[in-house]
Amino acid sequence: MKQTINILTFGVNDLEKSLKFYQEGFGWQTKGIVGTEFENGAIVVFNLDNGIMVSLYEKKNLAWDSGLKQQPESATEFSIGHFVNTDKEVDMIMQQAEKAGAKIIKPAQKTFWGGYAGYLKDIDGHLWEIGHNPAFTVEE
Amino acid sequence: MKQTINILTFGVNDLEKSLKFYQEGFGWQTKGIVGTEFENGAIVVFNLDNGIMVSLYEKKNLAWDSGLKQQPESATEFSIGHFVNTDKEVDMIMQQAEKAGAKIIKPAQKTFWGGYAGYLKDIDGHLWEIGHNPAFTVEE
Repeated sequence: MKQTINILTFGVNDLEKSLKFYQEGFGWQTKGIVGTEFENGAIVVFNLDNGIMVSLYEKKNLAWDSGLKQQPESATEFSIGHFVNTDKEVDMIMQQAEKAGAKIIKPAQKTFWGGYAGYLKDIDGHLWEIGHNPAFTVEE
Repeated sequence: MKQTINILTFGVNDLEKSLKFYQEGFGWQTKGIVGTEFENGAIVVFNLDNGIMVSLYEKKNLAWDSGLKQQPESATEFSIGHFVNTDKEVDMIMQQAEKAGAKIIKPAQKTFWGGYAGYLKDIDGHLWEIGHNPAFTVEE
């Protein structure tokens, strides 16, 4: 098995609202909602810079497709890390996301590992860590 | 904000058990547990082929670091997609993961979008979709 992940699918409550959040809060680009030719197939795809795809898919559809019962939100299952090269960028992203409806869970601050980071929840309850680790430079 | 994710952190119950699962079930390579010089800092890092990092971090530490209360497992928040180029590879990965302790949620089968895929839960309850989409070739 290759050491890779190709697609990360975020379960969301309302596809249009979440699309708007990622566009306005994060400034991410996408063609919008696709897959509507299939029942339960509507998704939004973001092609990330590093070749991975993030897709938004309604939680009820993810439950239907997998055959699982839809479960309540849980923010301690995953954290999605978005790292940048300055503390200032961290602050800016946290502010922009908050304006678009994200909830600040832990304001950006010095971390135990020698960096600067904060946590937020997106509008569907997923936990994001926005951070700067001076030990490595993120490619621009 | 760049259209990127640098790190995906999986909350796990027991770092050593999960390390073993990813090594034996997925065949992924890592230096093992690092960060033990920090209280609540122990993590396992896998450098994926596309530059993203997957880290394993105990859920209780993720709760501590974010200031959230640890919440019950929920498998419909995310699905992690590992896509390959043949149906046979899908079957092989599902079998290998099951042998290492994964739970098959939906056996691999033809999908509504014209591909072949199955769902499994890893030992910490995270949902993975192992699939083959004939509409695109995954880089080897």
